[in-house]
Amino acid sequence: MSLDLSNPQEIRAAIRKGELKRTTAGLAPDYVQANLAVLPKEQAYDFLLFCQRNPQSCPLLEVTDVGSAEPKIVAPGADLRTDIVSYRIYEQGRLVDEVNDATRYWRDDLVAFLLGCSFTFEQAMVQAGVRLWHLEHEKAVAMWRTNIQCQPAGTFHGPMVVSMRPIRPGDLAKAVTASARFPGAHGAPVHIGDPARIGIEDIHKPHYGDPQKFEPGDIPVFWACGVTPQAVALESKPPFMITHSPGNMFVTDTLNSALAAL
Amino acid sequence: MSLDLSNPQEIRAAIRKGELKRTTAGLAPDYVQANLAVLPKEQAYDFLLFCQRNPQSCPLLEVTDVGSAEPKIVAPGADLRTDIVSYRIYEQGRLVDEVNDATRYWRDDLVAFLLGCSFTFEQAMVQAGVRLWHLEHEKAVAMWRTNIQCQPAGTFHGPMVVSMRPIRPGDLAKAVTASARFPGAHGAPVHIGDPARIGIEDIHKPHYGDPQKFEPGDIPVFWACGVTPQAVALESKPPFMITHSPGNMFVTDTLNSALAAL
Repeated sequence: MSLDLSNPQEIRAAIRKGELKRTTAGLAPDYVQANLAVLPKEQAYDFLLFCQRNPQSCPLLEVTDVGSAEPKIVAPGADLRTDIVSYRIYEQGRLVDEVNDATRYWRDDLVAFLLGCSFTFEQAMVQAGVRLWHLEHEKAVAMWRTNIQCQPAGTFHGPMVVSMRPIRPGDLAKAVTASARFPGAHGAPVHIGDPARIGIEDIHKPHYGDPQKFEPGDIPVFWACGVTPQAVALESKPPFMITHSPGNMFVTDTLNSALAAL
Repeated sequence: MSLDLSNPQEIRAAIRKGELKRTTAGLAPDYVQANLAVLPKEQAYDFLLFCQRNPQSCPLLEVTDVGSAEPKIVAPGADLRTDIVSYRIYEQGRLVDEVNDATRYWRDDLVAFLLGCSFTFEQAMVQAGVRLWHLEHEKAVAMWRTNIQCQPAGTFHGPMVVSMRPIRPGDLAKAVTASARFPGAHGAPVHIGDPARIGIEDIHKPHYGDPQKFEPGDIPVFWACGVTPQAVALESKPPFMITHSPGNMFVTDTLNSALAAL
C-alpha cells in the first residue's frame, strides 16, 4: 500500500494510525494547512474576539462547536484529537506533555480554533515566480516578536510575531500581490524594509526559526505569523490549552485556491 | 452653522444633538456605514461565532468590549448609544420600543456588533461604471429570505437573506469584481441568475424593500444582506437586543477604500 502524499484524507488516515510521523511541510501542497489552538469554552469568547480583532495574525478558518473535535467545514469527518502528528498540552500556560494522540486530554468543554498558515501564501508566491531562500535550502523562516501591539481582547494581549523572508527587489510587488490574495493565510505583508521600525534589533538573529541569507539588494519583508495567537494565549496562562507541535500542522480538505476566491 | 454632510464626525455630532433626523443613505458616501446589533454577553459568543461562520452575511467590522459603547477601531470617540438616528429595542425577540437615544437601555453586560453594509460595494460598483436602477430611482433594493441555510452557531440559525439588483449583461463581470474587493461589506454575489435556484418564487415580489425594474437582458444578481444577522438573532428570541432602525446606519470614520486594502 503506497501512501498518496498529495491527498489530505490519506495523510490524515495515516497519521491517525501512527504510520506517518514527520513535519507536514511539503505534504499535500495544494491544500490549506492549519494551526491548532484548543481552549476551554470559558476562554473561547475572548480568544475568538482576539482573532476577530487581529485577522492578519489570527486568520480563522474554523471554530468547532463546544466539545466537538470535528472540523465540519474544512475537513468533514476528520478528528482533531488524532489527525495531527504531535500535540502539546499546556496547563496554566506551562507545557506539561507532548503526545501523538490527544484523545485522553479531550474534554466536553473544549473549543478548537483552526488558523491559516504561511504555507498557503508561500505556494502562491512561488507559483508567481518569487524565489524564497528558505524553501530552496530547506530551512525554517526567521521569526521575531515585534513592537507592534495586537489589539487586546479580554485577557488576551501581546506583541505581534512576524515571519521574515528576504525578497529580491524585482519580486517585491509580486510578493505583496500574491500573498494579499490570501487573507485567510495571513495575507499581505505587515511591514517591508527597515527591521528597526518594528523593533527588530538584529536581522541575522531571529527569536525563532533559522537566520536567512540575503543576496545584495534583497529586502526584508515581514508577514504576521501564526505563532502570535499561540504566544498570546499562553501568555494569559489559560487553565488548559492544546496546540499542534511546531511543524506538525492539521492538513485540511480545503484547496489553497479556494481561499483566494471568496 | 452649516453641516458638512460628507464628514462622519459632524454627522454623528448632529445626530447626537438631535439636529439630524433622516436616513443615512447618501451621507458621507466615502465612509463605511455599519449595521448595529447589540446583545448581552450571555448571547455574544454564539453570535460572534455565527458571524465568523457566515462572513458574507455578517461581515464584522468591530465588536466592542463588554459594556463599552465606544467603537475604538472604526470611530474612536463615538458613542453607539447616541450617534444613530433611531434604534429598535427588542425583548424576547419582540419589538418593545423605538427611540432616538438608547442611553437608558444601555447595560454593563452589553456587547455591540458593527457589520458592514451594501452602501460600500454599491459605491464601488457605481464608480466602476455599473448602473444601479434603485439608486437612479431613489428606491430600496429588493430583498428575500432564501433557501440557503446559514451555518448555525449555538442558538443562532436560519436562512440567508439576500438583496437583488438587476445588472446589465455588459456590467456583470464588473459588478462581481467591484463588489468582491469588499469582503468587509458582503463581498461578491452569492448567486447570479435563476431566482428559483435559491428559493425565490417571484422576482417581482420581494419580501422586503422595493420591486426592481428589469430592462431586456438584465440579469438578477444576489448579494448576502445585512438583514440576515438581525433576522437570525431575533429568531432565537434573545432576552434583550438593540438594533439600528432600517435605513439609519452608524456612520464610521473608516474610508470605504480602506476596506479594500487589507
